[in-house]
Amino acid sequence: MIVSPQSMSFSQPLPLRSGPSVRDYILAFETYGTLNADRSNAVLICHALNASHHVAGQYEGQPDSTGWWDTMIGPGKPVDTERFFVIGVNNLGSCFGSTGPMHVNPDTGKVYGADFPVVTVEDWVDAQARLLDAMGIAQLAAVMGGSLGGMQALSWTLLYPQRVRHAVVVASAPNLTAENIAFNEVARRAIVTDPDFHGGHFYEHGVVPKRGLRIARMIGHITYLSDDVMNEKFGRQLRRGVGPRYSTQDVEFQIESYLRHQGDKFSEYFDANTYLLITRALDYFDPALAHEGSLSRALAPALANFLLVSFTTDWRFAPRRSREIVKALLDNRRGLSYAEIEAPHGHDAFLLEDPRYMGVVRAYFERIARELA
Amino acid sequence: MIVSPQSMSFSQPLPLRSGPSVRDYILAFETYGTLNADRSNAVLICHALNASHHVAGQYEGQPDSTGWWDTMIGPGKPVDTERFFVIGVNNLGSCFGSTGPMHVNPDTGKVYGADFPVVTVEDWVDAQARLLDAMGIAQLAAVMGGSLGGMQALSWTLLYPQRVRHAVVVASAPNLTAENIAFNEVARRAIVTDPDFHGGHFYEHGVVPKRGLRIARMIGHITYLSDDVMNEKFGRQLRRGVGPRYSTQDVEFQIESYLRHQGDKFSEYFDANTYLLITRALDYFDPALAHEGSLSRALAPALANFLLVSFTTDWRFAPRRSREIVKALLDNRRGLSYAEIEAPHGHDAFLLEDPRYMGVVRAYFERIARELA
Repeated sequence: MIVSPQSMSFSQPLPLRSGPSVRDYILAFETYGTLNADRSNAVLICHALNASHHVAGQYEGQPDSTGWWDTMIGPGKPVDTERFFVIGVNNLGSCFGSTGPMHVNPDTGKVYGADFPVVTVEDWVDAQARLLDAMGIAQLAAVMGGSLGGMQALSWTLLYPQRVRHAVVVASAPNLTAENIAFNEVARRAIVTDPDFHGGHFYEHGVVPKRGLRIARMIGHITYLSDDVMNEKFGRQLRRGVGPRYSTQDVEFQIESYLRHQGDKFSEYFDANTYLLITRALDYFDPALAHEGSLSRALAPALANFLLVSFTTDWRFAPRRSREIVKALLDNRRGLSYAEIEAPHGHDAFLLEDPRYMGVVRAYFERIARELA
Repeated sequence: MIVSPQSMSFSQPLPLRSGPSVRDYILAFETYGTLNADRSNAVLICHALNASHHVAGQYEGQPDSTGWWDTMIGPGKPVDTERFFVIGVNNLGSCFGSTGPMHVNPDTGKVYGADFPVVTVEDWVDAQARLLDAMGIAQLAAVMGGSLGGMQALSWTLLYPQRVRHAVVVASAPNLTAENIAFNEVARRAIVTDPDFHGGHFYEHGVVPKRGLRIARMIGHITYLSDDVMNEKFGRQLRRGVGPRYSTQDVEFQIESYLRHQGDKFSEYFDANTYLLITRALDYFDPALAHEGSLSRALAPALANFLLVSFTTDWRFAPRRSREIVKALLDNRRGLSYAEIEAPHGHDAFLLEDPRYMGVVRAYFERIARELA
């Protein structure tokens, strides 16, 4: 599937939960498939930390440019673009085309940098809703996302209950635990204390806080994988087969080589201020907070039907976190399906092609397609 | 109990597994209690990453100087210094008195810095054995340690089987998993890539790579605690009670405040080169490696009786890692006791005063004391 990115400008200011508004902003997005005559087959895909609007397919002449959820979305795939009109959108504050810290603040004429306002999951959902308004889509057949994307899908059902028929929430949680926040905070400190961060205004110094970004990404990767899959893929294998070289600074074990490589790659393309913003959006998400901690009461407005999926070895967003959402929906007598997939890959499993996982999502979208027919 | 540190110089070079030798080195140590006439009541305590020879008691006039395992060791405590002669020793390469990276290399007349040779668990055990030689102690009633200290206790039973009657191995493992190594590696990268590290020769620049040390310690702290205890102690509590302040860089959640404080404290007193050395000693420890991965064959030389203790919520050195040691000892028909303690505190539990844990260790040492009588 050959795809191409689009973008849309919004002149009306978007008020943010953190206080300020963003005005004259752009959202980058992509669409796959065809919107049907009654505009009822739209599926919105929400992205997680380091992904984008480029969800599926490849760009013309760039065979390596496969979208981040291409295993899931495309012609004949579980989310079948021959039946559904699928929309991917890059969130505000990100660094892949939508307005973010690398863009010029219209109020000052200067690059935002660290002054880009804090954005929340709810703000993103508001921005996505305006994009749908502009596209003439009153109601989504489904909103879908994994991890932080799942939080956006959940938030859609609360902020715009009438506009969502189905919500697919994969490997997600109703909020972060203290441990989740702790990992985010260490990553942020690594970035912010990198001398090349310059208080978030590193662009004007012509540098990038790569040291911090590398550390942040290495920490992230550890939490995305399970202990089991790390032992299976790397174990205690040495990089240079024949016995230890006894160095404190050189790569000795394969796992070190892998993590350093992931860190290096990430630091080449990801924006440091975006990393801070998106991890903070994760930290802040907590729909139960306004209801004295009661998730059941928080989810009362939802009208959608839900599919929830979790993975047994995901210790970042463990199955018990998904079950909290299941319980709160059941308390509200909402229609839902829940699948706990036995998979060795940890949190990363939500991006991988596990046959049971694919089968569950395929079956759910076939049901949605039948409702359309 | 008022205690005071001692030290001993060793002129004979100590050959290290990494190739070079260390000569003219000092070991800092402390002793508590009295060595009996037949020198049979000595208990050696081995320390983990950031601890030292100061295991129990306080220094004269310093009421805040309590030793790191004072809950366990002292008059009338589980390891009763009225019955046992307890020895704490600071390991080579550490930064609390024994020869390490901050000392002068006699071969060059310069501070070692990053040139301090890589030391292994086995090297430490050799150095400890020489200290015991100098003290005239041919055989230990017990060797005991938690975490990395447990690895040293295990190693003692393999390198000097005739010199150890009992080994107490708490919250330990027969080697690190890929995930354990990964966390160590991220911490090391944070230190090594801190511009103030200067390739490990920061002393001569009059700086300390505090940014890196802070990150290393924050990562460490996350892995010492359980998800449960973090949620119980900090949860999602905001630092300033009344709603979020919406900042990416300021402290917002209590857990962030706690971690930053721990990082700051640590960076004030711990040596960066020591951090690299000690995490590497952890990485390299793997007695089964020389036996095609068979821990059973690796433990065949051990003659000691063992007490193994693990804690249910310890995900750093999980109970299943202790059970691997138990199984290998059973394969060799060695005498052992194993206690899996239901405790919420994660890896940190081995330093805390849990009544069941204390009871198990007390009972075991009462048995050792009866053998002495």
